[in-house]
Amino acid sequence: MESKELKVSDRLQRQLEFCREIDKEKFIGRQTYLSDGERKENDAEHAWHMAVMTVLLSEYANEKIDVLKTITMLLIHDIVEIDAGDTYAYDEEAKKTQHQRETAAADRIFGILPDDQRDKFRGLWEEFEAGKTPEAKFAHTMDNFQPTLLNDMTNGKSWLERGVHLSQILERNKNTELGSKELWNYSLNNMLLKNVKNKKIIDDVNK
Amino acid sequence: MESKELKVSDRLQRQLEFCREIDKEKFIGRQTYLSDGERKENDAEHAWHMAVMTVLLSEYANEKIDVLKTITMLLIHDIVEIDAGDTYAYDEEAKKTQHQRETAAADRIFGILPDDQRDKFRGLWEEFEAGKTPEAKFAHTMDNFQPTLLNDMTNGKSWLERGVHLSQILERNKNTELGSKELWNYSLNNMLLKNVKNKKIIDDVNK
Repeated sequence: MESKELKVSDRLQRQLEFCREIDKEKFIGRQTYLSDGERKENDAEHAWHMAVMTVLLSEYANEKIDVLKTITMLLIHDIVEIDAGDTYAYDEEAKKTQHQRETAAADRIFGILPDDQRDKFRGLWEEFEAGKTPEAKFAHTMDNFQPTLLNDMTNGKSWLERGVHLSQILERNKNTELGSKELWNYSLNNMLLKNVKNKKIIDDVNK
Repeated sequence: MESKELKVSDRLQRQLEFCREIDKEKFIGRQTYLSDGERKENDAEHAWHMAVMTVLLSEYANEKIDVLKTITMLLIHDIVEIDAGDTYAYDEEAKKTQHQRETAAADRIFGILPDDQRDKFRGLWEEFEAGKTPEAKFAHTMDNFQPTLLNDMTNGKSWLERGVHLSQILERNKNTELGSKELWNYSLNNMLLKNVKNKKIIDDVNK
């Protein structure tokens, strides 16, 4: 066998450059502890977990969803954080510049792809951000439900460390029920209020 | 708001128990270095990466594939390693007991799910293992192509550390071209033989 590189189409080159680039998503840390309560999750792990959960839990979507579209949206929606970083849900300063940082990131990173795939991924990311379609609504439900599940598994460690208030969680979750009433009911009653009762979340609502 | 847990259906309980259980996949380490050449990949990151790659690269499948089915297969195919551990591709001793360990793991872990979803996931895992359908063949192509891409990005660090021989890689990749001739050609000519030339892979084929 002779080592002689094949000439590769511009299309495949761009696709593979993108596949190499997104490896960096594995280095973007989140604030959620994994179930061992020691290490925090990264964006790639978070996306994987939500994708599997969507396959299993799509039956609880309020409206019928296209599962492949929803999964693809979830798999790629945090790729902009490679440039823009993870903006913690309760960091009000960072949230002011979040949109601008993430739009520039979308231009650069999705721009690596061939035009048709750039448009597809960019479109899915914008659809997620807008949160209007059944798929985007369910994706947001997952994006809130999955970290709540992990926080509950670690007895609210991340909430406690950060001194998170119930009003903040309710604000962040104001659209969670738009994707799935059933999963939001579970989240609120069987995870969030349990952690309020156990003093892991600060109760500033029931006064 | 009163903290009173809702009674939840047995079906949802089992689905969520499974969602909690699979968090452990994030702790299953692989032998592939990430693109920084420092940290090694885990199974969840690997699955996420392959799922995105499948969305982008399915056009190179030899036979038309169902993308959702292929992605779901890839997302769950390593879940058995939560119990069975990752078996390194070139560890001949561990490979002798791999099938038995993984079957027991599939019984336990997929068995957490409601029966219909247990059967679906178990079926996808067995289909992957058998490697006969277009989706399973392409999934195997991804399962070999993605770590090759990372190994190439780190200048063959993992191959060099482990003293891997070209014959071993060719044996492992004997079915890679069954899923995609085009991606196998790229892998062989533009990554593997380049790393043979650069002495990262030991050449025991061209004598």
